[in-house]
Formats: sequence, structure tokens, C-alpha cells
Amino acid sequence: MLERYRAKVEAALPACLQGDYASLLCNSMAYSLLDGGKRIRPCLLLSVCDMLGGDVDPAVPFACALEMIHSYSLIHDDLPAMDNDDFRRGKPSSHKRFGEANAILAGDGLLTAAALLLSEQSGFDAAKEAILNGAMRMVSGQSYDLNATERTEEMLHLLHEQKTGALFRAAVVAGACLAGESDSEGRFARLGDAIGLLFQITDDFLDAEQDRKENKFTYVSFYGEEQSRKYIRETEQTALSLLEPYRGDAAEELRNVIRKMVNRTE
Amino acid sequence: MLERYRAKVEAALPACLQGDYASLLCNSMAYSLLDGGKRIRPCLLLSVCDMLGGDVDPAVPFACALEMIHSYSLIHDDLPAMDNDDFRRGKPSSHKRFGEANAILAGDGLLTAAALLLSEQSGFDAAKEAILNGAMRMVSGQSYDLNATERTEEMLHLLHEQKTGALFRAAVVAGACLAGESDSEGRFARLGDAIGLLFQITDDFLDAEQDRKENKFTYVSFYGEEQSRKYIRETEQTALSLLEPYRGDAAEELRNVIRKMVNRTE
Repeated sequence: MLERYRAKVEAALPACLQGDYASLLCNSMAYSLLDGGKRIRPCLLLSVCDMLGGDVDPAVPFACALEMIHSYSLIHDDLPAMDNDDFRRGKPSSHKRFGEANAILAGDGLLTAAALLLSEQSGFDAAKEAILNGAMRMVSGQSYDLNATERTEEMLHLLHEQKTGALFRAAVVAGACLAGESDSEGRFARLGDAIGLLFQITDDFLDAEQDRKENKFTYVSFYGEEQSRKYIRETEQTALSLLEPYRGDAAEELRNVIRKMVNRTE
Repeated sequence: MLERYRAKVEAALPACLQGDYASLLCNSMAYSLLDGGKRIRPCLLLSVCDMLGGDVDPAVPFACALEMIHSYSLIHDDLPAMDNDDFRRGKPSSHKRFGEANAILAGDGLLTAAALLLSEQSGFDAAKEAILNGAMRMVSGQSYDLNATERTEEMLHLLHEQKTGALFRAAVVAGACLAGESDSEGRFARLGDAIGLLFQITDDFLDAEQDRKENKFTYVSFYGEEQSRKYIRETEQTALSLLEPYRGDAAEELRNVIRKMVNRTE
């Protein structure tokens, strides 16, 4: 699913790190960025652009910038002062491999390189803003997550919408912008929100046992399994109905992505 | 000196932090950004733009973005894993005030907000790239500083050019771009390099005693005082000769800035 988009992203990512920079910095950025992630956010961007009749190739740098932002956020999240995770995708996290100071710089470098890559693309200002707005909301979501004292329904939604939801919305809105859609009705923002929410709740399902041990504040811990399943089905319907007007391979693949997210909890 | 540019920057910075973000994140970003720094980099950008006949007001967001990038770099530099500084400009550093995780996010937030602010300015792509290129070289310089094992002359220059020099060059080149100069001959890059170098060597002079105790690798520790003074005079001449063709208040003020940097070591 979405394999041809993923192949384009994988092929383009290494060149995004080229520059006359300190070799340890380049190595540490590459260690995290080129590690075989699922690339779901950039694939989402490219598939939405494709679905709406946009050219996919000029959209690839935007997709790569989004993945670089995602990658920097994981490096900083894993730091001892944050989640203190020693492993990421089956190998030592950046700070375990390169030390804490170099991990901070690797994250800073990936975020900066993403902004620089975006600035080098001519035009498409709305897509750039969508991505950088997403990056800014993501930092805000991290702050809520770190400092939230009240476990209310409102905080659960706010935290998710900003932390995980931000880059999913950015992916869909930027993909639409790159195909020339202004998203004046907010359809693509809502589609991005729905897909991001589905990703989050179904992820919470898969991690439920571990999260329970760590007393984490998640959709499943807050609503319970039954209510969460109902919420998943409702969100699936929202996403599919927003996609309803669209035909063709890319639209069909997007529907498959949504169904597969749901299926992994059943 | 440069006071009227500084007033414009101070007036514009608070609005650069506005947005619907977590209040602790906004507070921590404001704590570091709005702390009465000298604003030398943004003032340099505005004065070069002014000197070359550009409009100063549309250049203010670019100047603010540059200061936000400088501010984020100080927050991350001060972290326990980096320089481990408890104080910055006479008050507790960000991580002493807000904790380490929030300080990481405050830096991430300032860098992201700077990139977003730049993306929102229409046109002036060369100025955006100059600033973000400077930010990227700065991270590389930090990496050299952190990991340099050889104290050679080549490493001293490389480290300085990237770490401190990068944002000075970005300020001058972006200021020139905003006034419509393409810098095809590299005059403004050289001017930025010369001013950045003057700033660094004269700063090393002022901190020489403390740096000696900490066995730091600086121009003064490497060349000694006499040779460093000679280097300062040569660099002053380079900067003044690059400014030679320019007349008017802004050019005169820039010459004063350069002379005052030199005077602080005498």
C-alpha cells in the first residue's frame, strides 16, 4: 500500500542531508532519518496530491521535509529529559548512539534542514505554511503532554490534535495545496484530522498493555476498549465520507490505508 | 548605535510569539526571546538593508526570525548536555527556570516559529535561504565545537566560521537581498564574515581570563594576545574597505559598530 510513493520518498531522502556540514552531524541525522520508517506522513501527502490530479514529483521535497520534521521530533522525544527511550525502531536511540548533546544537534539539524529545503522550493507558499504550522502545533502538543495535570476529555483531544494530529493534518492539507486546492472549505484539514485520529486511537490499542503499566493518558485508557472501538468506527466513517467524491487509484489506496488502520485493532 | 533599528526589532518581537499554543511553551519562548539582548544580528540585517536603499519595515520580520534563531541556539547551548550554563544574561537559563524538557521544547518552538514567520513573508526567497542556510551552518559549527579533537588553526577557523560566523553572514547577506542586491560578487558574504570574525575575536579578548581557566579553544588562546590584536586590526580594515563605497547614516553607523567592537579590546 502506497508503495510507489514510499519508493519516491526513500529515493529522495539521502540527498536532503547533503551539504558541507560536520560529518558527525550528517551521520547522526542520517542514522535517524534513513532507518526504514513507514513514511506514512509523506506517503499521505503524495497520495492526496496524486488523488487531486497534482504532479507527484514536485511534491516529493515537501514530503521529505515532513518526514525530516517527524524524525527530529522522535529524536528529541527520546531524550533522557523527555521520554527517556533507549531504543527506536529496534536500534539504539540517537542519544544512546551519539550521546545526548549530539542527539539534540541532530534534531535541530533535521528541523533546520527541513525548513531550508522548503525555502528552496519556489512558490507553493500555502504548502510550506501548512507544514511549518503543523511543526509548530506539534511542539505545542509536546508541551501539553509534558505539563498536563488534568486528565480531562478536553485535554485528551487537545493533546492528541496538536501532538500527533498536527503532522497528519499538515500532510493532507499540503498535499491538497500542491495539487492547487485552496482547502477553503476545510475538507482536507478535516480529512487529515480524521486520519490522524484513527492512527492515534488504533496505535493506543496496540500499545494498551504497555501503556497501562506506565499509567499513560491515551484514548484507550480514558474511554476503555469498547467506547474506543466505537470511536474508531465513527472516525473511519468520517474519513471515508470525506474521501467519497474521489475516484481513481490514489483515492482507492487511501481508502485501503484507512481500512487497514482499523483492521489492525480487530 | 543602531538604536532606531533595535527599537523596531523590540517592538515587533512579542507578536512573533502569538498563536494558539500551550501557554507554558509561549511563556518559555518569551522568557528567552524577550530578555533585552543587544539584538546585534537583526540590527545588522536592518542597517545593511537601509544602507543599500531598501525599505526597512518589510525587513523587520526577517530580522526577528534571525533573532529567534539566535535565541533558540542559546537555549540549547545552555542545556546540561551541552555547555551546562545555569545563567544567561543575569537570570536563570531556560532549563533552570522551566526544566530541561521544557527548555528543549522552547528552543524547538523558537526555531520552528522563525521558519514559519519566514514562510509567511511573500517573495524574498534569497533572504529566507540566507537565514536558514546560516541556521544550518550554525548547527554544524556546534557539532564541530562539541566533537573537535584537534586544536589546529584550520579547525579554529572552521569552528568559528560555522558556529558564530554563520548568523553574522546570514544577517548581512539577507539584509542585502532584501534591498534587492544579489551579492553575486560575494561582497556581503565577506562583509558578514569580517564583522562576525571581529565580534568573535574581540569577545574572546573580553572572556580571556575565564576561558583560560576552562582551557577553551579560542582565537586568543590559540594565537596569543599580540597576534590576536594584529588579527583584529586586519579584520577591521577588511570590513571597513568592504564598506568603503557606501555613504549615508546607515553606512556611518555600521562603521561605528565596527570601531566600537575594536575599541572594547583596547
